Order: sequence, then structure tokens, then C-alpha cells
Amino acid sequence: MQLQVQLEEHSYPIYIEHHALDRIKNYLDPNRKYAIVTDDGLPKKWVDKLQAQLPNAFVICFPHGEANKNLETYQTVMKKLIEHHMSRSDALIALGGGVVGDLGGFVASTYMRGIDFYNIPTTVLSQVDSSVGGKVAVDFDTYKNIIGAFYQPKAVIIDPETLTTLDPRQISNGLVEALKMGLILDERLVQEFEKDTLDLDTIIAASIDLKRQIVQDDEKEQGKRAILNFGHTIGHALESRYFDVPYYHGECIGMGMLFFLNDPALKHRVEAILEKLNIPSIPDYDPEEILSYVKHDKKGKSETINIIEVPKAGSWQMKTITYPEIRQILQGGIHEK
Amino acid sequence: MQLQVQLEEHSYPIYIEHHALDRIKNYLDPNRKYAIVTDDGLPKKWVDKLQAQLPNAFVICFPHGEANKNLETYQTVMKKLIEHHMSRSDALIALGGGVVGDLGGFVASTYMRGIDFYNIPTTVLSQVDSSVGGKVAVDFDTYKNIIGAFYQPKAVIIDPETLTTLDPRQISNGLVEALKMGLILDERLVQEFEKDTLDLDTIIAASIDLKRQIVQDDEKEQGKRAILNFGHTIGHALESRYFDVPYYHGECIGMGMLFFLNDPALKHRVEAILEKLNIPSIPDYDPEEILSYVKHDKKGKSETINIIEVPKAGSWQMKTITYPEIRQILQGGIHEK
Ligand SMILES: NC(=O)c1ccc[n+]([C@@H]2O[C@H](COP(=O)([O-])OP(=O)(O)OC[C@H]3O[C@@H](n4cnc5c(N)ncnc54)[C@H](O)[C@@H]3O)[C@@H](O)[C@H]2O)c1
Ligand SMILES: NC(=O)c1ccc[n+]([C@@H]2O[C@H](COP(=O)([O-])OP(=O)(O)OC[C@H]3O[C@@H](n4cnc5c(N)ncnc54)[C@H](O)[C@@H]3O)[C@@H](O)[C@H]2O)c1
Ligand SMILES: [Zn+2]
Ligand SMILES: [Zn+2]
Repeated sequence: MQLQVQLEEHSYPIYIEHHALDRIKNYLDPNRKYAIVTDDGLPKKWVDKLQAQLPNAFVICFPHGEANKNLETYQTVMKKLIEHHMSRSDALIALGGGVVGDLGGFVASTYMRGIDFYNIPTTVLSQVDSSVGGKVAVDFDTYKNIIGAFYQPKAVIIDPETLTTLDPRQISNGLVEALKMGLILDERLVQEFEKDTLDLDTIIAASIDLKRQIVQDDEKEQGKRAILNFGHTIGHALESRYFDVPYYHGECIGMGMLFFLNDPALKHRVEAILEKLNIPSIPDYDPEEILSYVKHDKKGKSETINIIEVPKAGSWQMKTITYPEIRQILQGGIHEK
Repeated sequence: MQLQVQLEEHSYPIYIEHHALDRIKNYLDPNRKYAIVTDDGLPKKWVDKLQAQLPNAFVICFPHGEANKNLETYQTVMKKLIEHHMSRSDALIALGGGVVGDLGGFVASTYMRGIDFYNIPTTVLSQVDSSVGGKVAVDFDTYKNIIGAFYQPKAVIIDPETLTTLDPRQISNGLVEALKMGLILDERLVQEFEKDTLDLDTIIAASIDLKRQIVQDDEKEQGKRAILNFGHTIGHALESRYFDVPYYHGECIGMGMLFFLNDPALKHRVEAILEKLNIPSIPDYDPEEILSYVKHDKKGKSETINIIEVPKAGSWQMKTITYPEIRQILQGGIHEK
């Protein structure tokens, strides 16, 4: 299956194909020189499979985890590219989850002012979310993704087989972002989550297709793309506050969405889905403390904040609210509005 | 005077106006929030002049010199942007020479995935060369400009008055790049250099206009833009070898061009111009040593190298030659071919 991302300057394909990694020359010129960037959390068999088919590829592997998505790792990778005499006509492949894709993509966007970038995402989250849209970045100071670029890949290659080695909690983590996409844009995707057995292939493809459309409308995030932040205002604050649990990002977004579902019936449907996905329920939090994290995210910039509400499945509205209003929402909890 | 750079995605103006810095609100919205990035080699009066007219501007000043165009300075500037709560809707102004423009531009291109960038170049070199074309970068490892991006400014504002504080050697340094532009593209610009008194304004404007056209034809340096490397193959090797003299970049480019002028009469004209500009003559070099620097520049990538020759003023041809041929050229010196 192939989806085409149509952007002003360039368009590129997203391939979704079981066993794509076994037939990589269907997607990539096997004779080019490639730097394969990956992390040590990805089972080695996927890396070996790829490398075996690309005679001019070498591997750069860094320690896994968000803590390594930073400028130190960026410099380490840059040094390896130089050591291997990578030129402007060579290409970089990111093989891994969102951390690898974000960091590898940012390296590709800035090495010699930009070399070709191929993304092979191997987690549900990176397949449905981070690999679509051209946002690449590293963390810096106390801020996530504050240094980065918009840099579109030449192609995204998704092999759902890679998910066979991913642990179930990571799968659910990514599925929450897919659920989010359905909640704001297409109720049919929400219904997929209510079936007795989840059809991962269908959910992933549908979710990518929705995100693709949003990105086409607003490549540089100057408007509509902001709706993808649904669930993220409070969700991300919870993630920062409970970094030591830790909750996964998708888990927090699941919790965070519940605050902005206006229809009680829909809220119950979503709660049931989250339970099925084993998303933890919202911890006992201190509203004032969570509010301070919301403010940190906004870097103290403004007195108001834009949030996305979902009045009914497959629709959204943007609202500008004040911090006291966020406080009220936090004090009210998810079951009183 | 205003030149318009017309690119596929966006176009933007280059203003060339005496005392532009005294009337900055003709070019910039004075009410926006700005980070003014500069270095401590630029006389403070220029910074003060700018800041006095922009109530929401703050200054980030780093130590001058190429040695500081690196990722450490980049991080220092990034931290200041965060400290000052810069958001995606704020803007960065680079006020200074090419070092400030390249580093400031790269920061602007990657802070929060890109904020508005205004460039106010204050050296001849940055006015005629580095501020036109959207190349931004920092040095890394042993390589110049190896980390960077193509990122076009919103506007370039040139106030020739700033050159009143620039020392004559720096003026000549930049003029060599203007001469280069004339040699490859327009003999009339070469003739400007042969007049009894140099008309800086005319030379700067003509040179910018030529570079503007090249950049419009080839924004991402995939083809024709390579002609701007005329003089740089050997010139840059000399610059690297004699880093301890040190020669300025433009001085080395002046020397480097002489190796690739085929017509003896033209070579003499250029030698006379370089002498007038007080460009030092080529030092006694070891051809083998210079060759090794040429190779380092190419990162050992290929067995051949593209060079630009100027058969007659205002014209160029690209040739692919081998390292043994470069050796021959170096052994021959500039007066035997
Ligand atoms: N660019 C964007 O638009 C965007 C959008 C959302 C999230 N993100 C970023 O994505 C990152 C999170 O991505 P993630 O959730 O994929 O985390 P991740 O990349 O850290 O992957 C999670 C873990 O799974 C391992 N792993 C990867 N593939 C595997 C596989 N097939 N089998 C077994 N283990 C595997 C990884 O090594 C890692 O340890 C964050 O840094 C976030 O900021 C970016
Ligand atoms: N981006 C490009 O396309 C491009 C093209 C050519 C060169 N460059 C880069 O440009 C840099 C060189 O630029 P440069 O020659 O302007 O050097 P520079 O920026 O180091 O400036 C030279 C010195 O002059 C000082 N100065 C600046 N303006 C002054 C003024 N008005 N009065 C007095 N002093 C002043 C500076 O503080 C510095 O000490 C290099 O890093 C080079 O790689 C980039
Ligand atoms: Zn998210
Ligand atoms: Zn130059």
C-alpha cells in the first residue's frame, strides 16, 4: 500500500507493506551509500536485515531513550558521518522509533546543509505519528524538540512486521495517537478501536492517512496542524510531572484527552477504549502543580493558551482559554465540567 | 535601492541604503520582539543604533572570530533565546559580518524549527557574498560550514555607512569576492575595479545583483551555483595551510583565482587589481602540501574534482580534473600553464 504526501515543494511516498524490510531494493537504490542511524533498543535482527541488502551502508547506533535525543548524540552521529566521508549525494536512513527518526532526521537536515533522508519507523508511535509530517528535532535545555527543522524524507517505509518485537505497552502507547487522530477527524477510526480484536494494519494505515492530510494542509504548522495537539496540553504536563513513574507519552495523551471531551457518552467510550489498551488511569494530581507544568511548556509567553476540544467523535474546535480556566478544568477533574 | 530575490517558495528584498540603520522602522516592524545577534568585533555604536529603535529587542553578543562559529556558540545563543522566552512568532536579527550571519542564521533556522530571520551584514564580504543566498552554517570537527541549512532571510538590510568603521584590509577582503563575481559573470564589474577610485556602492550593488541571479537559478546548490567556487579550490587550501599567518579568506581567493585564468592578458589585469587592493602575493608553497589540503576539503570522496576556469572576463567553464592535474597546476605556479 502506498500513500502519497503532496507538498508544495516536493511530494514523497509512504509505503506500508508487510516484509518491506526483506525487499528493501523495491524502495531504495541498493547501490547508494547509506548511513543507517538506529538505537540499541531496536532488536538487532532488523538492522542486520537492512544492512545485508545494502552493500554500501554502515550503521551508527546510539543508546536508546529520550534522554539521548540531544545535541551530544547529534554531534556523535555527525562525527561518524564525517569519518565515513559521507558526501552531499549520500543518504541517511533512520531505522527505529521516534527518537531515532527525530534525531536522525535532524542530522540529515543539517549535515552539509541537508542530505537525503529515508525514514523506516519501527514503533506504532513513529509509524502513525512522528514519521509523518517532516518534523525533526532534538531536546535542549529543559525543552523537548526545541531545536529542529521541517525536513521531509524522500520516502517513509513501514514494515508492520517490525512490531512483532515491540512490547505491548509500546504498542498501546502509539495507538493512543491513532485514537486521537480518529477523535478529531474520523469517527470510523474510533470505531475500529471498539471492535473485539484490533486490526493494527487498518488502524495504522487510516491514522497515517489522516495525519497526511493535515500535514498537506499546513506543512509548517502555521494553523490547522495545531489540532494534532488535542490531548497534549494537560497530557504533556502530566508526562513532565510524572517523569519518574514513568508514564509513556501516549499514556499521558490518553489521560489528557479526557479533559477535553465535552460529550459524557463519548467520554465513556474513550475511557473504555483506553482501558482496553491498558492505559493507566489519571493519577491523583495537584492541579496547581500540573498548571505550572502547562505554563513551562508555553515558556511563559502568553496569558492565554489554545486548546482543542472534541465535541463529538470526528470533530474538533479550537478555543483560546486562560490559565485560570485551565486551573478550573484541572480542579474539576474529568468527570465534572 | 531594492533588489528582489525571487525563489520558488518565497521571495524577499535586499535593501541597500545609506543610513538604513538610522531608519530601521522602514524595514522592520519596530514592535516585534527581536533577538539581535552580534559579535564583540563590531563597534558598539551600530548595535546601539539598532537597539534604540526596537523597544522589544535584546542583544546576544559573542566573541568575534571564525573560531567561535561553532556549536558551542550556537548553544549559548540558543540558551539565551530560551531565557528570553522567544517564541515561534518572534524574530532574530544578525548584525555583523559573515560569522554572525552564518551562525545567527543557523540558529534562526533551527530554533523551534525556524523563526523569522533578518540579516544586516556589516562587512563588505557579508554584504556582497554571505548574506545573499540563504546558506547558513557553523564549523564542526575540522570542517568549515559542514553543519548548516538553506534558510532564506525575510529581508537583508545593507547600510554602507557601517563600512566606515571597517578596516581597509577587511574591505579588500570582501572586494575580492566581488571581483570574482565580475570575472565569472560580467566584465563591467571587473572594469569598475580598474577605475582610479573605487566606487564601493556601485561595486557592492552590482556584485549582489549577480549573486542574486545565480542563487535564483540554483537555490540549493545542485548545479550552477558551483561557479561561485571559482578561485576557492586552491584558495581555500592556501587559507587552511597558512592559518597561522593568517591570510584572510578573500586574500587567498584572490591568489587562488590566478591559477585558473587562462588568458595571460586577463591574468595581468587581475594581478594589477589585486595589487591595488593590497592582496599579498602567493607565498612560496610546497605543491604537495597544498594538494593534501585540497584533498582534505573534498573529504577523500572522489578521485576527481570540479574546478571553474575563466577563459575571458565575464565567462566561465567547469572542468573535471584529477588530483595529478591539480598537482601539475600547483607545480607550474601562476605564470606557466
Ligand atoms: N516528529 C514528530 O512529529 C513527532 C511526533 C510524535 C512524537 N515524536 C517523538 O517521538 C519520540 C517517541 O517515539 P517512540 O515512542 O517511538 O519512542 P522510542 O523511539 O524511544 O522507541 C521506544 C523504544 O522501543 C525500541 N524499539 C523501537 N522499535 C522497536 C521494535 N520494532 N521492537 C522492539 N523495540 C523497539 C526503541 O529502541 C526504544 O527503546 C519522542 O522523542 C517524541 O518527541 C515526534
Ligand atoms: N553563507 C555564505 O554563503 C558565505 C559566503 C562567504 C563567506 N561566508 C562566511 O563568512 C565568514 C566571514 O565573514 P567576514 O569576512 O564578514 O568575517 P567576520 O564576520 O569575522 O568579520 C570580520 C571582523 O570584522 C568585524 N566587523 C564586522 N563589521 C564591522 C564593521 N562594520 N566595522 C568594524 N568591524 C566590523 C567583526 O567583528 C570581525 O571581527 C566566514 O565564516 C565564511 O565561512 C559565508
Ligand atoms: Zn503526541
Ligand atoms: Zn569565498
